[in-house]
Amino acid sequence: MTKTISILGVTGSIGTQALDVIKHNPEHFKLGAISAGRNMAKLEEILSDFNPPLVSVQDESAVKELKSKYPEIEFTAGDAGLIEVATYDSSLLLTAILGSVGLRPTLAAIDAGIDIALANKETLVAAGDIVMNRAREKNVQIIPVDSEHSALYQCLKGEDEKEISSLIITASGGSFRELTREALGSVTLKDALNHPNWSMGQKITIDSATMMNKGFEVIEAKHLFDVEISQIKTVLHKESIIHSMVEFIDNSIMAQLGNSDMRTAIQYAFTHPKRIHKNNPLSLDELSQLNFKPMDFDRFKMLKFAYDALEAGGTLPTVMNAANEYAVGEFLAGRIKFLEIEEIVESRMTQHDNIQNPDLETILSLDARYKSNMR
Amino acid sequence: MTKTISILGVTGSIGTQALDVIKHNPEHFKLGAISAGRNMAKLEEILSDFNPPLVSVQDESAVKELKSKYPEIEFTAGDAGLIEVATYDSSLLLTAILGSVGLRPTLAAIDAGIDIALANKETLVAAGDIVMNRAREKNVQIIPVDSEHSALYQCLKGEDEKEISSLIITASGGSFRELTREALGSVTLKDALNHPNWSMGQKITIDSATMMNKGFEVIEAKHLFDVEISQIKTVLHKESIIHSMVEFIDNSIMAQLGNSDMRTAIQYAFTHPKRIHKNNPLSLDELSQLNFKPMDFDRFKMLKFAYDALEAGGTLPTVMNAANEYAVGEFLAGRIKFLEIEEIVESRMTQHDNIQNPDLETILSLDARYKSNMR
Repeated sequence: MTKTISILGVTGSIGTQALDVIKHNPEHFKLGAISAGRNMAKLEEILSDFNPPLVSVQDESAVKELKSKYPEIEFTAGDAGLIEVATYDSSLLLTAILGSVGLRPTLAAIDAGIDIALANKETLVAAGDIVMNRAREKNVQIIPVDSEHSALYQCLKGEDEKEISSLIITASGGSFRELTREALGSVTLKDALNHPNWSMGQKITIDSATMMNKGFEVIEAKHLFDVEISQIKTVLHKESIIHSMVEFIDNSIMAQLGNSDMRTAIQYAFTHPKRIHKNNPLSLDELSQLNFKPMDFDRFKMLKFAYDALEAGGTLPTVMNAANEYAVGEFLAGRIKFLEIEEIVESRMTQHDNIQNPDLETILSLDARYKSNMR
Repeated sequence: MTKTISILGVTGSIGTQALDVIKHNPEHFKLGAISAGRNMAKLEEILSDFNPPLVSVQDESAVKELKSKYPEIEFTAGDAGLIEVATYDSSLLLTAILGSVGLRPTLAAIDAGIDIALANKETLVAAGDIVMNRAREKNVQIIPVDSEHSALYQCLKGEDEKEISSLIITASGGSFRELTREALGSVTLKDALNHPNWSMGQKITIDSATMMNKGFEVIEAKHLFDVEISQIKTVLHKESIIHSMVEFIDNSIMAQLGNSDMRTAIQYAFTHPKRIHKNNPLSLDELSQLNFKPMDFDRFKMLKFAYDALEAGGTLPTVMNAANEYAVGEFLAGRIKFLEIEEIVESRMTQHDNIQNPDLETILSLDARYKSNMR
């Protein structure tokens, strides 16, 4: 049976890799509605390959020209357009859009009973309780696309979550893993964007270098799986071959391995619980040595912030995420230095008066404020 | 609910470790019938700790004295005793007896509808088709106890065997893994018995040093799982931390990891599909480096013999197993040199006129002949 897959954030790294998975498996998948941001060149490239029924763009003013060029496609725009795409009648919605803008459309899809392939981790970081409770109410599956959470999800296949001893999330260490804190003072944007293992978007590559990304993953894991915070561990594993592991109460550890190809996790999210063929195996010859080192929370302070935010709960994770989004934007624009990212995040977290059990409006308003650095 | 576990071969390495699992989990397990060979000292040690309802010993003449010492226990002996133990009303029979003598009692247990925790791999090597067909007919589960097959079994939990791309069995390389073939000419029995990772019985330790054990495991895997011979791969992994892996058609590899404690696999066989607590986790600090090397079939010829026997089918695996049992016995008795083990096995295999689709009598008669080196 062909599954219709809609995609929020189709022109990004995950979005385009998802299109690749769909294109190579026409007997399994069909593209549903899609949303793009401002990358019109990439969108038109996609439209030359695919014929989606509905396309949303960020900028309303682009719609008219698109309509005249692609008369058979329906176009829409803005926040309302994202909701239309998210609620389009699909088997699955891939949320590959960047940042907390994914939150409202994700909730709209859940309300419409559409299963979510979740690549937008900020959704769970900013509003994990609200999203997961809604998904449980609506009996909607949230299938992780991050390679680490896909690994955990696969390790838990056929297992009882009550028998988990710990989740062990592996961390490559990012672009600067070989550098001391002292050396971090003088690193450049170009250095930061040069991830040793994974080819990803700019924001997540910076988040990997600061280890904020691993912190997001810890928070994401807490929401996706039924464990205590103390059961979520991280370990440095520079080869990124073991994508993550689950230790069970009987001392057995299950691990998922593969090469650094996000399409494996994307495809698995599309086919779960089944698997289909893919032509990019990890050769056993590539498997020569796997190294592991204990995580260093003094070196990677942002990961410690994330554990702190998770422990504190309330609006602190929202603020951390939004402050990080602002700071990474400033760094990408060349306006601040690398270590200033964590200074900004730390100061915003320290100054924030935490609010427990926030509603969606509170979360969205804090998110908007801290993202634009209005405090 | 307490499971009654009967054990064939209770005084051996697996048998005593199984007793340890039972002893530490009285709320889960109760010892059923047991069989011992000639190690009366060990048996009496066991009887001071446990109170099994039925005990079989190899030597009929030992029964009288045992009966007078333990009047509340029923004693029996010989081949008939093994069958009595195997068919004793239990939730599970652990076949931890050494060699092909386990074959008839295992079949008797299957006929009685008792699930098997299989540690006696020679059963599947000598008569895999007969055993597995009988188990399917009787709807009896064959749960592997070998750490490698337990790993494969756990990797396949919740998965579809049709989606397997390959089974990847890890091999520590045994006592002589750092030696060239030339250096093997002068190794001693004491060297051979010094396994770097696992504490096991003498026969299996020698089988590990010759790599015959890995060959048995390949044959065992073929019978336990629904794959082609070409889908069963082996890889050298000297740390024995990854116990084995399954690669799926979508390039995802699942692995099971743990320390070198056979009780984990024994306990899992007892609790499957559930898991219960155990107090010997692999510390993440122990996980510093995992090394992998492609298997070398020229260096480890016995593994090649096993693949050949599996390809040929018929009675060749039976002959290989029996010739090996004879040769290892000779080596353990100090009568032949290490490399003569493989010379004997190779010559017996070469000389054998293979018989396809053998019945049980043919298998048992060949087994007896080659074990006693009558050809």
